[in-house]
Amino acid sequence: MSLRLVQFGLGPIGQACARLALDHGHTLVGALDLDPDRVGRDLGEVLGRDALGVEVADDVTALAEWAPDVVLHTTASFLDQIENQLTACVAAGAHVVSSSEELFWPFDRDPGFSDRIDAAAREAGVVVVGTGVNPGFVMDLLPVVLTGVVARVDRVDVSRSVDAGRRRGPLQKKVGAGLSEAAFRERQAAGGFGHIGMVESAKALAAGLGWDDAEIAETFGPQMAMSDHETEHVTVTAGDVAGIHQTATVRVGGELRASLTLTMAVGAPDEDRVVIAGDPPMTVVVEGGTFGDTATVAAVVNTARRVGAARPGLRTMLEIPAAATGR
Amino acid sequence: MSLRLVQFGLGPIGQACARLALDHGHTLVGALDLDPDRVGRDLGEVLGRDALGVEVADDVTALAEWAPDVVLHTTASFLDQIENQLTACVAAGAHVVSSSEELFWPFDRDPGFSDRIDAAAREAGVVVVGTGVNPGFVMDLLPVVLTGVVARVDRVDVSRSVDAGRRRGPLQKKVGAGLSEAAFRERQAAGGFGHIGMVESAKALAAGLGWDDAEIAETFGPQMAMSDHETEHVTVTAGDVAGIHQTATVRVGGELRASLTLTMAVGAPDEDRVVIAGDPPMTVVVEGGTFGDTATVAAVVNTARRVGAARPGLRTMLEIPAAATGR
Repeated sequence: MSLRLVQFGLGPIGQACARLALDHGHTLVGALDLDPDRVGRDLGEVLGRDALGVEVADDVTALAEWAPDVVLHTTASFLDQIENQLTACVAAGAHVVSSSEELFWPFDRDPGFSDRIDAAAREAGVVVVGTGVNPGFVMDLLPVVLTGVVARVDRVDVSRSVDAGRRRGPLQKKVGAGLSEAAFRERQAAGGFGHIGMVESAKALAAGLGWDDAEIAETFGPQMAMSDHETEHVTVTAGDVAGIHQTATVRVGGELRASLTLTMAVGAPDEDRVVIAGDPPMTVVVEGGTFGDTATVAAVVNTARRVGAARPGLRTMLEIPAAATGR
Repeated sequence: MSLRLVQFGLGPIGQACARLALDHGHTLVGALDLDPDRVGRDLGEVLGRDALGVEVADDVTALAEWAPDVVLHTTASFLDQIENQLTACVAAGAHVVSSSEELFWPFDRDPGFSDRIDAAAREAGVVVVGTGVNPGFVMDLLPVVLTGVVARVDRVDVSRSVDAGRRRGPLQKKVGAGLSEAAFRERQAAGGFGHIGMVESAKALAAGLGWDDAEIAETFGPQMAMSDHETEHVTVTAGDVAGIHQTATVRVGGELRASLTLTMAVGAPDEDRVVIAGDPPMTVVVEGGTFGDTATVAAVVNTARRVGAARPGLRTMLEIPAAATGR
């Protein structure tokens, strides 16, 4: 299935999505970005590929002319930064697949936003959905799919551990590797620190399991280094911060029903694990973990093929068919 | 979500489905079975539960009066044995979730059947779907869901290994545990031997991955015992048959793109494994395996909640949303 796509946002993830879309045989009919270094240039050139005859634009009014099937949207994490962008895509009659973490489960964080986007999408007959790996897969979609073969779910525990030392330098710095605990706490107090989307995953998991009135709680703190680590980008001494340790818990009627644990730290093992207590119990391990950067890009591009098979509206990955088999 | 359900078929799996449906808070408004020992009795009594005030019937004309939301269908594996049953359910305006292995992917095995059921279901505005663990989950839905975060899928290898020695006696006999190789081959030549659904899984996997013109090949043979095993039900001597070893392969343009391997044998490890070669590669292990009997029952009952969120027609598990979140 070859789609007419627009790439909205040409940061690293957006560029990777555009390149993968080309590799998958889709056609890029347009691209939007605000960076003056990109606007007006040929999209193919921006991507480090052959020229595509498509000029990067900075104005969403171009969407109507491009008439894409789907917009791959990779501009920002937060709902208040993307509403106008999504509205413009929907008004142009295009489905939207977005990497925005908050869009993965926007209903509780901003009901007004959700109602507006849902109504506009239904009216236009298109789907708007947020996807990715975390949120979007490891801590929400995957456990919900697994519980499809579980008769009685008592509790779900998901852990994702990422060895930040094997990732890009910016990520190692982003998780605070090499900081003292005091410096970590200072940065934490300043805000804007930590992985986005734990609450979104927890909400989606609870909804997917049919748990009403779920109470979600979060924790965020440093993962301390137990030994010294030296990477290309940072030096971590035992007793200093190796990275972040983040959790979200789901309680129903006071009872702990799910825990989500994310460790992104230098020296941490690469592994995702879903443990379902119930009948039958299930323990599922993604050995070596789900490689975040590539997998997020894959989620966006792969979901584009499937949105047309879902009902119009603001949807979640729980509602997008696993495959559009074209029958 | 509480549904009005009819249980169609009251063999061991059907009874387990009915009990789980009650445990999940659904209402059983009717039941169908042909066994004279069950017909006319109270369904609750047949299930070993309190009376339900619902009499087991043997005539599908009762469906119209019961007016169920969904029929849980657990009568037979083969399409030619279930067409009239499915047609009656659809005519009564009910969705159908079936444990029939062939119904999981009926399109290639019997296009005429598939067209007729699909047309009837669309006209009635209902969904007909086959589900289970194998086929229905381990070798098809699960790998397709996993590839949702893989940018480039080179190859998919799925293995399911079941320790038949830890399962019911009938299953141990069914897989030929304790037979000599000659006796196994004799039984094989007589036909009707082996696990049903490998080809269905392979077809679904290929379709879910968008592989056109996939060629499917099957093998079936004995898994020989490497050591002695003594279970409650059979004695297996080293060199005799421990169980079955079945494979299905998917080739595209002559190239091997997927292999499915099922081992059900006394002494085999309990484990499911999905290995995806590609970018990023993924290795996912279900430690201890997916317990077949309970999980199949769970798949049927859990899918009933979600069929209403799919488009009407003859559908596959690849098209049923992971959850119906009720928005």
